[in-house]
Amino acid sequence: MSRARERREVLRATAAERGLDSVLVTNLLNVRYLTGFTGSNGALLLRVDGRDLFGTDGRYTTQAGVQVPDVELLVDRATVPALAREAVRRGSGRIGYESHDLTVDGLHGLERVLADAAAGGPVPELASVRRAVEAQRAVKDADEVESLRRACAVADQALAELAAEGALRPGRTELEVGRELDARMLALGAEAPSFETIVATGANSAIPHHRPDRTELRPGDFLKLDFGATVEGYHSDMTRTLVLARAADWQREVYALVAESQAAGRAALAVGADVVAVDAAARDVIVAAGHGEHFTHGLGHGVGLEIHEAPGIGQQGAGTLAAGMAVTVEPGVYLPGHGGVRIEDTLIVTDDAPELLTLTSKELLVL
Amino acid sequence: MSRARERREVLRATAAERGLDSVLVTNLLNVRYLTGFTGSNGALLLRVDGRDLFGTDGRYTTQAGVQVPDVELLVDRATVPALAREAVRRGSGRIGYESHDLTVDGLHGLERVLADAAAGGPVPELASVRRAVEAQRAVKDADEVESLRRACAVADQALAELAAEGALRPGRTELEVGRELDARMLALGAEAPSFETIVATGANSAIPHHRPDRTELRPGDFLKLDFGATVEGYHSDMTRTLVLARAADWQREVYALVAESQAAGRAALAVGADVVAVDAAARDVIVAAGHGEHFTHGLGHGVGLEIHEAPGIGQQGAGTLAAGMAVTVEPGVYLPGHGGVRIEDTLIVTDDAPELLTLTSKELLVL
Repeated sequence: MSRARERREVLRATAAERGLDSVLVTNLLNVRYLTGFTGSNGALLLRVDGRDLFGTDGRYTTQAGVQVPDVELLVDRATVPALAREAVRRGSGRIGYESHDLTVDGLHGLERVLADAAAGGPVPELASVRRAVEAQRAVKDADEVESLRRACAVADQALAELAAEGALRPGRTELEVGRELDARMLALGAEAPSFETIVATGANSAIPHHRPDRTELRPGDFLKLDFGATVEGYHSDMTRTLVLARAADWQREVYALVAESQAAGRAALAVGADVVAVDAAARDVIVAAGHGEHFTHGLGHGVGLEIHEAPGIGQQGAGTLAAGMAVTVEPGVYLPGHGGVRIEDTLIVTDDAPELLTLTSKELLVL
Repeated sequence: MSRARERREVLRATAAERGLDSVLVTNLLNVRYLTGFTGSNGALLLRVDGRDLFGTDGRYTTQAGVQVPDVELLVDRATVPALAREAVRRGSGRIGYESHDLTVDGLHGLERVLADAAAGGPVPELASVRRAVEAQRAVKDADEVESLRRACAVADQALAELAAEGALRPGRTELEVGRELDARMLALGAEAPSFETIVATGANSAIPHHRPDRTELRPGDFLKLDFGATVEGYHSDMTRTLVLARAADWQREVYALVAESQAAGRAALAVGADVVAVDAAARDVIVAAGHGEHFTHGLGHGVGLEIHEAPGIGQQGAGTLAAGMAVTVEPGVYLPGHGGVRIEDTLIVTDDAPELLTLTSKELLVL
């Protein structure tokens, strides 16, 4: 059974439990997850009776045949209405839909189509499935973990090459470094950077999500790199903070503190651990050192087909970790006007110690 | 008065006409258009009484101060609910919202917030404004036209440089050419390519939206390049089809036909022209030559903050052109298994002849 098929069977069981006879999946990443389809327009009618239907438009007929060989295909420019009509034809009493994805106009359109298709007969009820597919996606299967491994390896390799070639030297600008990092990831097989690469040097490193500009790298400055590669749709996410030429004592102290916090966060990743407790494990280290106010964001987040997905790991989070979840651990200490350090890994939660996917050293590198 | 302010005054008049006392603008591009804000989270409460409020979260406090100096700022992580509460506090009977943008969950959340904020008093009614801002955006003001000019100039220059340097020669792959074109546009100041650059050679050129792969350029083959640059958020869009080394008679014939059709389409761009008639002006040329079935898409589309926006110009379109609209004209003839030609410009509709923004020659270039 293909991976996509296995995933559909899990959703089918969820649908049956909830008393739905079909689920109309419209979120494109959820469609990709459940079918393997990578085009820009597609939707899935998943049915408890197994008579699933994948819908797309004429641009993707060939691609759908290759990527989704095991689901019946419906080609129609108005994909979602066409699937809804077919849901009525195949018999539906209660259809699940994704209320976090469908717009208000989309829902009204769907209601009209169902009423028309019912042609005077009983009109199926629409019921939100909430984030059922996202919840399923939080736990990765073996293929997904393998894609994440590759994505992380590309980022590791790109940074190693840039460092080895002396590309991270005083006089270069943040923009130049960011573009070279992106180009290197593409050359190594990434489909795209995971997000807009963050390169922040000197005082800019104290801004958690600084956008690279023409600031030049200078000796004695921090250089914070937060970046990732997308491979087979899966996103890696890694932050490393280096120092150029020489490290001052205050820089070594902040770095050691963040590294200790990050190690504590990684150690807290265990099956059943509460996400708030995982955040606290790392945060307590920084708070105890008197820098609590300088760690201004959550500890981490899930990664996969999206760069930010379930579970969130932070003070406002909820829920516990499960084996197979892919998450980041990324504490930071930011001293406004001076500089900041963040250290971030992507890891897989397992029944034993978490599997580290971003393998670049976390020793303080003085380049 | 700033451009953003002028745009808000137009929307304010629309809101008043429709009996709304405020409009909650959630579509991020519409927010950008109406405020100048370029961050990833922001919403605008526009009020007929002039007491507008721009909302964003703490990451963007500084940026909002710089980009949106003339609108009162509200900083709240839950931006839209916070604006809705403030709409009640400032007095609202009927609030417009964007039903094509807001999700079903988003609307339900908004309804709850309004009911809570009303605290037993009258709860404001929510009414869709439909695509009021998109309709306004279809007609560009002078600043927008200038951004589009720059975006088109970057694309023109990037292609000219690649051609001059011999980068479009047999032996290179589609992927290599695409990446060089993208890199050149970035180096020339583009924020990003307008969309995934299309490079299609040989038989691939017969696929309207072929994704570049490892196919090598070969002498005697068509090379179709469909690409654009984003500058200040505005997208250019241009297609040119070249021939490598030598052009066969059939290639010259197809090229001349598409060029004639494209010229007819451009000539039909006039204030008041029906979009279906504009499509027909270009399509009739191709149909008369017996290739109607090989022109498989619409003639063009609006461009601006989105690569595809209003107005659509095609057989299924509706409406007429107005001065200041930015549109593409892009007929194509695709001969499956052999090759295809598309020629596309970005132009501004004016009271006189349309202003051509993509200035690269449309003579058949044999490289």
